[in-house]
Amino acid sequence: MSSEFSLIEYYFKRRAGRTEHVPLGIGDDCALLNVPAGHQLAVSIDTLAAGVHFPHHTSAFDVGHKSLAVGLSDLAAMGAEPAWATLSLSLPELDPHWLEAFSEGFFQLAERHQLTLVGGDTVKAPLSITVQVHGFIPVGAALRRDGAQVGDLICVSGRVGDGALGLKMALGELAAVKNPLQKLNRPEAQVVLGLALRGKAHSCIDVSDGLAADLGHILTASKVGALLQLDKLPLSAELCQQPAEIQEKMALFGGDDYELCFTLSAKALHELQAQFDLPKISVIGQIEPKQGLRLQRPQSIEALPIMGFDHFDRA
Amino acid sequence: MSSEFSLIEYYFKRRAGRTEHVPLGIGDDCALLNVPAGHQLAVSIDTLAAGVHFPHHTSAFDVGHKSLAVGLSDLAAMGAEPAWATLSLSLPELDPHWLEAFSEGFFQLAERHQLTLVGGDTVKAPLSITVQVHGFIPVGAALRRDGAQVGDLICVSGRVGDGALGLKMALGELAAVKNPLQKLNRPEAQVVLGLALRGKAHSCIDVSDGLAADLGHILTASKVGALLQLDKLPLSAELCQQPAEIQEKMALFGGDDYELCFTLSAKALHELQAQFDLPKISVIGQIEPKQGLRLQRPQSIEALPIMGFDHFDRA
Repeated sequence: MSSEFSLIEYYFKRRAGRTEHVPLGIGDDCALLNVPAGHQLAVSIDTLAAGVHFPHHTSAFDVGHKSLAVGLSDLAAMGAEPAWATLSLSLPELDPHWLEAFSEGFFQLAERHQLTLVGGDTVKAPLSITVQVHGFIPVGAALRRDGAQVGDLICVSGRVGDGALGLKMALGELAAVKNPLQKLNRPEAQVVLGLALRGKAHSCIDVSDGLAADLGHILTASKVGALLQLDKLPLSAELCQQPAEIQEKMALFGGDDYELCFTLSAKALHELQAQFDLPKISVIGQIEPKQGLRLQRPQSIEALPIMGFDHFDRA
Repeated sequence: MSSEFSLIEYYFKRRAGRTEHVPLGIGDDCALLNVPAGHQLAVSIDTLAAGVHFPHHTSAFDVGHKSLAVGLSDLAAMGAEPAWATLSLSLPELDPHWLEAFSEGFFQLAERHQLTLVGGDTVKAPLSITVQVHGFIPVGAALRRDGAQVGDLICVSGRVGDGALGLKMALGELAAVKNPLQKLNRPEAQVVLGLALRGKAHSCIDVSDGLAADLGHILTASKVGALLQLDKLPLSAELCQQPAEIQEKMALFGGDDYELCFTLSAKALHELQAQFDLPKISVIGQIEPKQGLRLQRPQSIEALPIMGFDHFDRA
């Protein structure tokens, strides 16, 4: 066996996970998979490239964690139960220490979500990681972007802006403190909340490109508008210490938060808040019939452009 | 919408394919997919990096074609019917001409196999393409590597060695002629043959790493050995014009053939040969109880190492 095959075997096959729904995992031309009766398969593919999606000096453990977390966040946003992942690793060199730490970061997160690695590829190329995640959803229960209704409350989980604040710290633009860096490097997908939102939320998306951009996707798909309350945005203590301009920029236009933004009725929110195992949920605005995204400031209302993080606009 | 989203929309959403089994395609956090009752899902993920899997000067059309063909070949090797693909594109720059030609190469092949593009990602990074293919197989009908039986005939479709010969031509090491270059740049996955092998072949693999290596995977997984007849290897007229040493090296250890290597009984082969729509099939050896791979030369038998193409052994 060549070292490419040995590599996959050694680091990735040993901890592939539970084999329920996996008649054949890593090691053949394809993996063979069973989707439970009455369920649909949700899939999402994401590539993280060094220097684009994470700074080059990010630890291998964090790269392993994050490369799976971003996909889990997409599953959460659909209300899907995580099932399988595939992993294609482009590496400039075979470094056993890096691989050991990367696989530890990947598998610790996978195991917490009972997710099975079912296939992969390894390539000698600049550092880049592609992960496809697969999850199960009962037919008709998926949370989509196109179901927001006029009058819906707009909610977001956790806090927004810390991912982008953490990036500034990782790049040395701001003094580093623990929590925003943790948010940047080891984001936690809101899988439990996504499952709780089934049958309650009218629309849902994960905040990966920035709150304004991601809410914008809901508005465009649902053909509605929104009024967002600036003073309701949930900010961390660390972000609150920054100048107001930075706070607003990070919270509205920063990426990498991996929280869920969703819309639902006041009644559904009330039911949701009766559950004890969910993260903090903040009501940050309301869906309106007039299209576009508007920001309520203390003294004025400002129209916001609907746009997001764009890899091709970056230097 | 940012240009990243517009890009996906413009080039890839317009020709996404048939929507049967795709309740929700490109444009949400996840695609939603239905696997037909009584079927398993076969999946395979592959990354092609410029300068590793194809020369840097390869045309965009050919890169688009090949990035899907290698995955289709994995589906063929399992006996799966192509259904969906996801595509993650790492591009150093946004070049509309390149994207137009790439998507043309990708979709012309996808449409021939009625395969639907259901999701994707785009990243600014060195040129690299990751495709995950998904196919359907009736439960229990998959062609695996681990079922070869003592006495099975070993067969291969088409011709072997032309992919590696084409690479030498593409790299300028040999004078270029059309057919081997075509084989390198626009390989055709043996999907129809894979479907015909259901219920007939005991084991199957696609020839991507080189015949000796890929047959080696069958032998290892099935815990059997094989005697291969050197004079039975199906070579093209172009390869036959090369020195004997090159012929043997390309046919046994070259990669990129994307033919199927499979084992079956003489009776099953006879049934197969009665079908009129299949490619040329050559019997090249037999499965034996003694483990290892042996090569029958005119005057001697030589033990072959079981190893293959290794991206991490390349300079």
